[in-house]
Amino acid sequence: MYYSQSARLAIYAPGEFGKGQSKTAEGVIRYAPNPVVAVIDSTEEGRTVEQVTGIPCQAPIVASLTEAMQYSPDALLLGTAWAEGHMPSQWKPDTIDAIKNGLDIINGLHDFLADDPEIVNYASLHNRKLLDVRRPPDVLPVGSGKAIDVPAFICLTVGSDGSVGKMTTSLELNSVARARGYKTRFVATGQTGIMIDGVGIAIDRVIGDFMAGATERLVLEVAYDNDFVFVEGQGSLTHPGWSGVTLGLLHGACPQAMVMCHDAKRTHVGKDKLPFPIPKLSELISLYEMMTNYVRPAKVVGVSLNTSGMDEKQARAALSAATADTGLPATDPVRFGADELFDAVLAMRGKKS
Amino acid sequence: MYYSQSARLAIYAPGEFGKGQSKTAEGVIRYAPNPVVAVIDSTEEGRTVEQVTGIPCQAPIVASLTEAMQYSPDALLLGTAWAEGHMPSQWKPDTIDAIKNGLDIINGLHDFLADDPEIVNYASLHNRKLLDVRRPPDVLPVGSGKAIDVPAFICLTVGSDGSVGKMTTSLELNSVARARGYKTRFVATGQTGIMIDGVGIAIDRVIGDFMAGATERLVLEVAYDNDFVFVEGQGSLTHPGWSGVTLGLLHGACPQAMVMCHDAKRTHVGKDKLPFPIPKLSELISLYEMMTNYVRPAKVVGVSLNTSGMDEKQARAALSAATADTGLPATDPVRFGADELFDAVLAMRGKKS
Repeated sequence: MYYSQSARLAIYAPGEFGKGQSKTAEGVIRYAPNPVVAVIDSTEEGRTVEQVTGIPCQAPIVASLTEAMQYSPDALLLGTAWAEGHMPSQWKPDTIDAIKNGLDIINGLHDFLADDPEIVNYASLHNRKLLDVRRPPDVLPVGSGKAIDVPAFICLTVGSDGSVGKMTTSLELNSVARARGYKTRFVATGQTGIMIDGVGIAIDRVIGDFMAGATERLVLEVAYDNDFVFVEGQGSLTHPGWSGVTLGLLHGACPQAMVMCHDAKRTHVGKDKLPFPIPKLSELISLYEMMTNYVRPAKVVGVSLNTSGMDEKQARAALSAATADTGLPATDPVRFGADELFDAVLAMRGKKS
Repeated sequence: MYYSQSARLAIYAPGEFGKGQSKTAEGVIRYAPNPVVAVIDSTEEGRTVEQVTGIPCQAPIVASLTEAMQYSPDALLLGTAWAEGHMPSQWKPDTIDAIKNGLDIINGLHDFLADDPEIVNYASLHNRKLLDVRRPPDVLPVGSGKAIDVPAFICLTVGSDGSVGKMTTSLELNSVARARGYKTRFVATGQTGIMIDGVGIAIDRVIGDFMAGATERLVLEVAYDNDFVFVEGQGSLTHPGWSGVTLGLLHGACPQAMVMCHDAKRTHVGKDKLPFPIPKLSELISLYEMMTNYVRPAKVVGVSLNTSGMDEKQARAALSAATADTGLPATDPVRFGADELFDAVLAMRGKKS
């Protein structure tokens, strides 16, 4: 475990909470075992987490670190993830103040706290921990397709873009598997997943040559004493910036089943509307199946749609359209549960064994 | 330029020269502007570079650094590339001796000399340079497909595996273009290419999230004042360890034409015969064209076969078989020249403009 799962967290998301760049904050609130005691974002001050995000959590949103300190946090978690992953310079004074107030700092950005001598100095002075969860292990192997030989059934979430629900879907599938009595593991491959599960490697932070090898290592570590392994995917094979991470992870994980994740409101990759349209889901599914096949044959068994912001009628229509396009079961696991998707994974496992 | 192109090089390849792990040594000897004055490999002592490799270079192969010093080198170039890129511990004494003898050290491994305090200390004491060519820039962008808008015609070499001739083919195409009077640039994306061209970024050493962005930056830097840009590709889309690097580079480079590179003797990816067969070239070509298409449409216009070790009849037969399979011109650019391949690139440029 990178950190205590009972530590009380204050989440730092100034100007961004609930606004699309705060997926780390929201993922931790929804899924981490840690109690979240406050969120810092002056633009939403006075509301609760539930009022802003719909996640059933009554933690207050406060304007400043000083106010957050009233709720006795143990750590400040930097909860905003940018594409480039740099730390905004205006975050630094609050980070240092938090250390002076006795908090550990949890950071999922590409920029590491431990690389800032001033922050390191304060942390040392106040005997606080700097937890750069995206820092990969120093030594990693080159991928060699070893995960094709493990006993567990490996299911990977893949997607049409970043931030469409791959981590969420993997976590929900893992929960269903556990509830049904299977031995099962979620494998975290991104900063938020690591903050939730306590272990993992942020594959997008790994040196290119070792991305598949790092994924392979994560899978091998859990694949001998579990029935199912649910690996969190990253990015999309058609994203002009992240496709390499997606493919490295795909070939390292060696899945036998995949679940296709998509945000039903998204038409282009990237939130800034790059000129790259998302292909039809059925086309994307063929693409993932073809690329996986060179290392291990695998099928996409279902579709996970993020329908947040749609009313129930719109959501149901989007799910029906996805099924009509792909011939596969489709659900929004946050809204309607992941049982149907897990049934599809289970059916594929039956076919393979 | 990372280093003087007139510096005299001694190349260090103990036990490996000409044996398959020395592609960095051989690439530098064949293509770098620097004079190579000696190669260190006691297992080939007394022969010349030409006798071992066929490359027309009369530099002697010597048993030790002491002997190499007779030829007045300015730098020791570590010339053996392993898949994992670690520096063998037995290389360290020779590296330190070379520094004590007044040599700079050129290193293309994943392990950096500058990260070894003892080596750094010696280099500082003797005022020598440690040139870790695989070290990427500290700050890189996330790829965004920007290279789709540049004036130069972009040609990328792609391949069936690592070490099949992608760098060589890009360099040969660049030479033909220059000889025909075009403004042209080779873009180095690997350690050997950087040692040869003097600039570039080793994309396989870049953090996953920034591989496409690093490639994009390299292309944008040269794409406004050249007719052609020949980008060195890496790995293969079907390699279980390196596929992510290949795809990140592909989407960052935004090629309009590709040349498929293959070692005619290779049946499986990886020199250690992984259980992953290389698909037919025609199938691989479809795969690369399909994956490129999501960012920018591009066609494979020719096949570059590495036929080293085959006699001329075998080589010609392999080229004919490649053409029969793919319907494309095929040549071994080292053996038979790259004019035919450049003609195919030129024809594609005519179609696109």
